[in-house]
Amino acid sequence: MFDLIILGAGPAGITAGIYAERKKMNFLVITGDVGGQTNWTRNIENYTGFHIISGGDLVKRFREHLVKYNVEVKEGELATGLKKEGDVITVITGKGRYETKTLIIATGMAHKKLGVPGEDRLIGKGVAYCATCDAPVYSGVDVAVVGGGNSALDAVLQLVNIARQIYLIDVDPALRADPVMVKKAKESDKVTIFHNAVVKEIRGEKFVNGMQIEQNGRLRELNVEGIFIEVGWKPAADFVGELVARGRHGEIFVNCGSETDVPGIFAAGDVSSVPAKQIIVAAGEGAKAALAAYNYLERK
Amino acid sequence: MFDLIILGAGPAGITAGIYAERKKMNFLVITGDVGGQTNWTRNIENYTGFHIISGGDLVKRFREHLVKYNVEVKEGELATGLKKEGDVITVITGKGRYETKTLIIATGMAHKKLGVPGEDRLIGKGVAYCATCDAPVYSGVDVAVVGGGNSALDAVLQLVNIARQIYLIDVDPALRADPVMVKKAKESDKVTIFHNAVVKEIRGEKFVNGMQIEQNGRLRELNVEGIFIEVGWKPAADFVGELVARGRHGEIFVNCGSETDVPGIFAAGDVSSVPAKQIIVAAGEGAKAALAAYNYLERK
Repeated sequence: MFDLIILGAGPAGITAGIYAERKKMNFLVITGDVGGQTNWTRNIENYTGFHIISGGDLVKRFREHLVKYNVEVKEGELATGLKKEGDVITVITGKGRYETKTLIIATGMAHKKLGVPGEDRLIGKGVAYCATCDAPVYSGVDVAVVGGGNSALDAVLQLVNIARQIYLIDVDPALRADPVMVKKAKESDKVTIFHNAVVKEIRGEKFVNGMQIEQNGRLRELNVEGIFIEVGWKPAADFVGELVARGRHGEIFVNCGSETDVPGIFAAGDVSSVPAKQIIVAAGEGAKAALAAYNYLERK
Repeated sequence: MFDLIILGAGPAGITAGIYAERKKMNFLVITGDVGGQTNWTRNIENYTGFHIISGGDLVKRFREHLVKYNVEVKEGELATGLKKEGDVITVITGKGRYETKTLIIATGMAHKKLGVPGEDRLIGKGVAYCATCDAPVYSGVDVAVVGGGNSALDAVLQLVNIARQIYLIDVDPALRADPVMVKKAKESDKVTIFHNAVVKEIRGEKFVNGMQIEQNGRLRELNVEGIFIEVGWKPAADFVGELVARGRHGEIFVNCGSETDVPGIFAAGDVSSVPAKQIIVAAGEGAKAALAAYNYLERK
């Protein structure tokens, strides 16, 4: 039985871990990765103390901080369910069950999926959600990017120097990204834009070898080996089910004291209802949540 | 007329400045110093991304961040009053008056004073509030420390290797500091402790040359050249007067959105009612306050 489990190790979860360790709590961090979305941010200029740093370098420093504090991190493990009976909170993951007196949910945001046939089956085999991570693999081949916002256009512009042809598939009649990015994309003769278009299916046996889209009621096949899905983000909190109150977009409601509506369960960072989705804010909220969990146990 | 004035340049004010600059607001920072209390913190181990850094070095990095962003900082200037008429907020300082549409109060905490004759007149001339800054000046002479908490004992232990004799003057019957510090102080034959004692007057023409204390109803003179006053901290918000709602200790009430009870006036960091007095929390709250001020102007 732990004093505290922290789910997630982005800026919020890591900072919660640092504070929990300083309070000598008996705790555990369970997370898919260390750093979360910060990993995929190119240049960060608004984390106070670093006038410019890459996301990767900032995460490296976060990780060093965890290591110095000997924080126990179960990496590559994701929560799939959550229960509370009496004062005991149970976290269910793909690998086991853990009991704890308090919980901080700091699981951040997850990529939205398209929800089309072939997508889940071919993740990592041509279906990608992060151009910064995966673009280099698609050198000299045809790829598609799905979406019309800044993330999608950023993916297109990263791929322009790598891939052979890029199909940009957007559900709307006009791209929503910043005009400067849209202009650059349109200037490239490698980029073909499909407006008012949706993905119907992703094809391929072992690896992606094509996709079907529908544009203005007409079906169309595209031969691509890579598909970058950039259709937005949502709070990574589906695993809480009905246990904890959430908002319209799935964000976990917290009060000023980082408390959810369930005693002993706290939330911090992008998964929470705190509106500012910023690294420095998430870090501060992580500290507040850890101190709140500590004070909750002290009062008991 | 500014879009925004930020009062204070500790972690909260600096981060607010970084965010305001990124939003291209027309703004100004007015502050006594850059860094605030962080300057006087020896080793910081809980600012995420730096597993250990001195307060001075962290402030140096904060300052670099401000300089890179070309933030205009009026240093050495303190607010003395505040008014709001219609939508116009007026900040009055020792040097002038400034009009602004929004205000972020991030003035942090100030040392509590004793309020005895001689104290104000002899500040910097023997009366000191920061042992880390000023102890080295008192090499080989007799000094007093006033207080009985960790800050007071920390001052005593810093002075043990520097001063000739140290009088510790505490109002309570027993010291409140951590036992390990109290033990060390008691073990030193340089340290004399006066319990149940209060300072009546600080003496000296140009420089401190003595003090009068009262212990158990008996007056007593101590010949000292330095007096370190370590009797705690309070929110540095007296200049707001009755304009903004404050709590029992003088802290400015804010809601989760960094808003005070006066539209357009926000607060962040240690001066606010947010309970966690931590550098990383103050930085996060500064970012939130700047985004809140920006959104407030956008809505107008």
